[in-house]
Amino acid sequence: MCEANAYLWKDGEEKMIFENVDRVQPHEGGLLLEDIFGRRLFLDARIKELALVDHKIILEEIEK
Amino acid sequence: MCEANAYLWKDGEEKMIFENVDRVQPHEGGLLLEDIFGRRLFLDARIKELALVDHKIILEEIEK
Repeated sequence: MCEANAYLWKDGEEKMIFENVDRVQPHEGGLLLEDIFGRRLFLDARIKELALVDHKIILEEIEK
Repeated sequence: MCEANAYLWKDGEEKMIFENVDRVQPHEGGLLLEDIFGRRLFLDARIKELALVDHKIILEEIEK
């Protein structure tokens, strides 16, 4: 399976926040993440980088 | 390997535009895609959806 883990980039560090992510959909004001079990998480964040071979989705918070 | 293929969504259809994508970095005005061989492509596009289990990165053009 080629799911990835989502990390929040903050203060120069990556912190894992959601595992086994299958789908990611940008929406106004944030991102909807869905894992391989259908669990969903909405975050006030945007994609900073994807590194798929490393199974990483790196996110950063949206400043408000 | 868990690379994905990038598709451009246009007129209700997905058209594959770049294969074996490892890294994706959003930049102002577009996206930088890098494949597993280090080849790079810059596109005036944004991420519409990721479907990683299906190895898909679906993009849409940025309207100018």
